[in-house]
Amino acid sequence: MKKFNTSPISGMQELLPNLQAEFNHLKTGIAEAFYRHGFQNIETPTIERTEVLLAKAGGDTEKQIYKVVKTAETASDADQALRFDHTVPLARYVVEHMNDLTFPFKVTQIGRNFRGERAQKGRFREFYQCDVDVIGWQKLPIAYDAEVIATLIDALQILPLDKYQVRVSNRKLLAGLLEELDLSTQSTEIFDIVDHAEKVPEEATIQALAQLQISPDTVVKITTFTKINGPCKEAIAKLKALNFTNATFNDGVRELEQVLSALEHKNNGKVAIIADMLIVRGLDYYTGTVFETIAPSYREIGSVCSGGRYENLAQNYTDQPLPGVGGSIGLTRLFYVLREHNLIQASLSKPIDICLIPITENEFPTAEELAAKLRKHNYNIDIFLADKKLSDKIKYADKTAQNIIIVGESEVQSGNFQIKNLATGEQKALTL
Amino acid sequence: MKKFNTSPISGMQELLPNLQAEFNHLKTGIAEAFYRHGFQNIETPTIERTEVLLAKAGGDTEKQIYKVVKTAETASDADQALRFDHTVPLARYVVEHMNDLTFPFKVTQIGRNFRGERAQKGRFREFYQCDVDVIGWQKLPIAYDAEVIATLIDALQILPLDKYQVRVSNRKLLAGLLEELDLSTQSTEIFDIVDHAEKVPEEATIQALAQLQISPDTVVKITTFTKINGPCKEAIAKLKALNFTNATFNDGVRELEQVLSALEHKNNGKVAIIADMLIVRGLDYYTGTVFETIAPSYREIGSVCSGGRYENLAQNYTDQPLPGVGGSIGLTRLFYVLREHNLIQASLSKPIDICLIPITENEFPTAEELAAKLRKHNYNIDIFLADKKLSDKIKYADKTAQNIIIVGESEVQSGNFQIKNLATGEQKALTL
Repeated sequence: MKKFNTSPISGMQELLPNLQAEFNHLKTGIAEAFYRHGFQNIETPTIERTEVLLAKAGGDTEKQIYKVVKTAETASDADQALRFDHTVPLARYVVEHMNDLTFPFKVTQIGRNFRGERAQKGRFREFYQCDVDVIGWQKLPIAYDAEVIATLIDALQILPLDKYQVRVSNRKLLAGLLEELDLSTQSTEIFDIVDHAEKVPEEATIQALAQLQISPDTVVKITTFTKINGPCKEAIAKLKALNFTNATFNDGVRELEQVLSALEHKNNGKVAIIADMLIVRGLDYYTGTVFETIAPSYREIGSVCSGGRYENLAQNYTDQPLPGVGGSIGLTRLFYVLREHNLIQASLSKPIDICLIPITENEFPTAEELAAKLRKHNYNIDIFLADKKLSDKIKYADKTAQNIIIVGESEVQSGNFQIKNLATGEQKALTL
Repeated sequence: MKKFNTSPISGMQELLPNLQAEFNHLKTGIAEAFYRHGFQNIETPTIERTEVLLAKAGGDTEKQIYKVVKTAETASDADQALRFDHTVPLARYVVEHMNDLTFPFKVTQIGRNFRGERAQKGRFREFYQCDVDVIGWQKLPIAYDAEVIATLIDALQILPLDKYQVRVSNRKLLAGLLEELDLSTQSTEIFDIVDHAEKVPEEATIQALAQLQISPDTVVKITTFTKINGPCKEAIAKLKALNFTNATFNDGVRELEQVLSALEHKNNGKVAIIADMLIVRGLDYYTGTVFETIAPSYREIGSVCSGGRYENLAQNYTDQPLPGVGGSIGLTRLFYVLREHNLIQASLSKPIDICLIPITENEFPTAEELAAKLRKHNYNIDIFLADKKLSDKIKYADKTAQNIIIVGESEVQSGNFQIKNLATGEQKALTL
């Protein structure tokens, strides 16, 4: 009989071992792809000073932040809270360790972040994010924008999704267009409308723009622009055909072309990469390149990774200009939707390679000897050490392991063993 | 100029990338050893209901617990706090998922725990613990006590320490001795005195026992017992020679002998394993086997891992008996003391295998091609993409990578490259 509510707090992922193994497989695969691309790992503390976390944030973030109550021992410390993303702690980290870091600083963070969101299916209050960022000293070449995207594309190969489409744009394009149209004062609202344009019928977008007192002609100019998408050459030609003289806009065209053509070299046709002017990313934090990735066969999953270029990582903490570009995979949410789509099969991911079943205690030493040898080849080996019926021992192996080896008196004497695959029933001989 | 205090909160580990790579190397190595021994990984949430965390704890733990302030969205939830160890969440997990787990449940948890301790050199408020536990259903054979110790011994091989000594005892021995001496009512105090005996002169121990109104004769019996230590056969012989008839004591002798002789098979002389009656472990949570491990060349490091047998993992949450045995490596503290002893060399752990240096942008495509090929062999490859003087590019490689390949016009044309080891200066030829 339970004496307590033992369920995890709502909004916190908790997995059975086989599913945890599958989650770890994805997390490790993503980390390895990041490392292969030369990103270095750092870990910042889970707890930060509240003033550091909220230096910029405000709004929703402030409402969702988990504050931490100080203990008797830490009473004199400043107000503290749990980090809600990796970007704010990264900014603090880079400023703190500036003199000890090598720039461009290619950094990856993979860890748990916290937001006190309303409990809701598929929404997590504790969630893993897998981030890559490149931080420049004073300036950072646009070539790194493409490198961040290429790195994330490589990392996505570990996921059980067949195809991806990376949609790239540059915030300077819409910003430049609005300068050209003399609408810069309304840019926050217009960026927001374009950001939501995909989720609503076209009329709703037109109406929303009209409500900002934008003339029908100008609305057409904006929607004509936002409909531009397609492969590099085609999209760049369309953007150039608009014949805008605005410098910001033309910077955007040049940067977008550089990113897309660099990606052609790096990507080798692995995934579809297109320009798409509907991508603006909600955050006003981004200043140049922006991107989102979808899996076309599972559009309802939404963005599997996204990111962009920011002009100044740490402007709230230092006067030193630190331009950067980064992207993130929200692994906990993604794992949840992959499971919802039956794309994760826990049954395939039994983490034990071989379970050794000694018939009696007399076979323990031989089983240990065999296990030690197999472990040297990096196999994960379990030995069943409890006194149970053979059928119960086999049941245990069947639930936890991929293969079984029964170690009885005759095996001990002969030094010959049979390894049996528990999924296929296939047997192979093995000697000590 | 800094606008904020950007240092991490006191008591929280934050490492530069090269040291982080070294920390990760140890953490991964420990996890892999646990997996090789058939332990399955789980992760429980960082945040738990306070009533679950404090169901047993009390005392110091309650004072050091980090409570979490609910947000507007989570206002209706129960009181919450950060976990302070892995054992309490494991108990909740096992009760919650009892019907879906396979017993004996061999489980490992590696993650961050939180205690609001007083800020002090080498004391951490956020710290990694690497735990292994085996949980039985109703009962659990003593063979698993040896398996937990053997697993931890294998895991310790990744640390830069040359020798270990595992000191094993069984709490039933001292408990049985106190029954025999009619001192059971004072057992908490006496266990505590024995637990501290090593840290004080012998007279202090004798005096502390005398203060409990224990007669000098009886004090001698206790100290004679606590001085017993040595290899299995020798120590067991000495314990048997005491000729106690008490059943608990003799259970302890039998169990200790089983654990030590099983370890002789598993360990193959890799580390010194001795019985030592001074080991009782402070926690009254333990009921049988107890162990601590030291590195004899660095005694001041203290225990590098420890653990023991507990009769009932989850008695606060369920009536179901769940005996277990487990142990833990406190990695954050250990990493700190290893650094203090200069046993961790960050300079050796540059996480990038090869840094490619294109001379100009013209060489980017060839560098990308070479990088893609090397990444297929699981090398961590960085490409320097910024426009800097060659000497600055080489300086960057020297700080972050183990090897360098310069990609210039002639290399592009010939397809022949020189890979240079940045530590030794050694060069090797390489072709696309």
